[in-house]
Amino acid sequence: MGPGLLACDWGTTNLRAWTLDGAGQVVAHKEFDLGVSKLQPGQAAKRFRDEVRPALGAERTPAMLCGMVGSTLGWTVAPYADCPAGLPELAARLTEVEPGVRIVPGLRCEGIAGAPDVMRGEETQLMGWVAQRPERARGRQVVCHPGTHAKWVLIEDGRIVRFVTAMTGELYAVLSRHSVLKGEGPADDMDAFDEGLAAAGGGEALAARLFTARARVVGGDKPAQSTPSYLSGLLIGAEVAATPRLLGVAGGEPVALLGDAALCGFYKRALDRLGVANQIFDGEAAALAGLFALNRMGADA
Amino acid sequence: MGPGLLACDWGTTNLRAWTLDGAGQVVAHKEFDLGVSKLQPGQAAKRFRDEVRPALGAERTPAMLCGMVGSTLGWTVAPYADCPAGLPELAARLTEVEPGVRIVPGLRCEGIAGAPDVMRGEETQLMGWVAQRPERARGRQVVCHPGTHAKWVLIEDGRIVRFVTAMTGELYAVLSRHSVLKGEGPADDMDAFDEGLAAAGGGEALAARLFTARARVVGGDKPAQSTPSYLSGLLIGAEVAATPRLLGVAGGEPVALLGDAALCGFYKRALDRLGVANQIFDGEAAALAGLFALNRMGADA
Repeated sequence: MGPGLLACDWGTTNLRAWTLDGAGQVVAHKEFDLGVSKLQPGQAAKRFRDEVRPALGAERTPAMLCGMVGSTLGWTVAPYADCPAGLPELAARLTEVEPGVRIVPGLRCEGIAGAPDVMRGEETQLMGWVAQRPERARGRQVVCHPGTHAKWVLIEDGRIVRFVTAMTGELYAVLSRHSVLKGEGPADDMDAFDEGLAAAGGGEALAARLFTARARVVGGDKPAQSTPSYLSGLLIGAEVAATPRLLGVAGGEPVALLGDAALCGFYKRALDRLGVANQIFDGEAAALAGLFALNRMGADA
Repeated sequence: MGPGLLACDWGTTNLRAWTLDGAGQVVAHKEFDLGVSKLQPGQAAKRFRDEVRPALGAERTPAMLCGMVGSTLGWTVAPYADCPAGLPELAARLTEVEPGVRIVPGLRCEGIAGAPDVMRGEETQLMGWVAQRPERARGRQVVCHPGTHAKWVLIEDGRIVRFVTAMTGELYAVLSRHSVLKGEGPADDMDAFDEGLAAAGGGEALAARLFTARARVVGGDKPAQSTPSYLSGLLIGAEVAATPRLLGVAGGEPVALLGDAALCGFYKRALDRLGVANQIFDGEAAALAGLFALNRMGADA
């Protein structure tokens, strides 16, 4: 029996591919340096056929793809689905790019001040996380997916009803490379991280709070090498303190952290400090569960 | 009778010099492309003597300098004075770098979360603004000095008691050059600026609000050329909404805007929208008044 599904999380910087058997168990796994930001226009189909499929022995296996592969930079534009949306709504809006190859739609919702908000890839992890345990499909869940563009998501009865994107990771990257807050060292000084968390306050007046990262070195006696850790604590602390309210979520509601374990660990530290119950879940396993569930549903549709 | 004072606002990017007569009236004015960021170490004294003095016919005139010339990048480090400080405290802490050439100290205060905050150059404009009208030396004044590192300042009975720096201008610069919010056009689309002001809310959760600048283009129908104006409105709106409270100033207290007229105009628009009374004052005239007053006081000291 060959693999039942070729599941791909195809993002901006790389492509993660798995083959799954009919029960959803992983048969094989490979990563490819084929993020959509590295592709020439029109190249996705060919490289998928010539490189990804043979490497996994999945020349004819049905494939389910999620992430930026569905954007203008990717294979083709898979139009956004609108919130509220759960697995059935995503499965009903799959884009078939060639026989047996389907792309999961991104999600759109009404965000802050009437501006739309969008995600592409996280919806599959989020719905996979819901699919992993029946109790997650009932009632209300608040999920934070940290990253370059972190997502705060409100899930009700298994459907994403609203989300907000916080560009904390990108702020960290541009400030630590291009501003007076630039720093060389790694962000692993947990004392400085905690000092940053404390300076984040309620998450308001960020442009003012950010300057403390400079002033504590210039006007104080703190070493410049601690700036990256301090900046990371300040930005994550400000995000965690203020973003849930934009979803209509009270400060104390428990938060599920979904994604990369190391990054989730920093968010956990920030939430713990505020006394907010939280738990970390593996984003990769959730993505797989989502792709598997969508393939099943899509087959039935 | 030769000029009574050679007054210089010597900042990071350029040097503005004036000669004043004994009554404080301007005799001559010149600008020099001699900002401290462009100087070789140890070069300040020579270039001041060889270029600035002769150009203004002020070879032997006493000189008063303020700004980054008093930092590690400048002529010599003029140690910070601590808040509360007014003209007398600044005049008592002038640094004489050679006979007849004195540098105004920067100011330091306890800022957010116990971190120090610092300014260098703005203190002279602020105290000059106070010196321009006797009534400003009594009671309480809230002053905002917009810029790369904007200052919000609480003045009581003619002394700066507390201030907060908001790095709004630098955030704008790095985000519009290096992030997904980068944009080409000028920030002169006032409809987009106002849209940004509206999206600033109470100034909390800035990393989330910033993403609306991306989402309104990607997920909405707004033109990418309007991003710089939107971003400017969003950042200034967030600063204006949340920073005064960090000084212990209520949202509705009147604000004096001191500095560059065009930049102050954007802040005026943001404050008007919140219904906060405000008035714009010329920063250059205030700097001159401050340097003149400090020279008088320093001569008496």
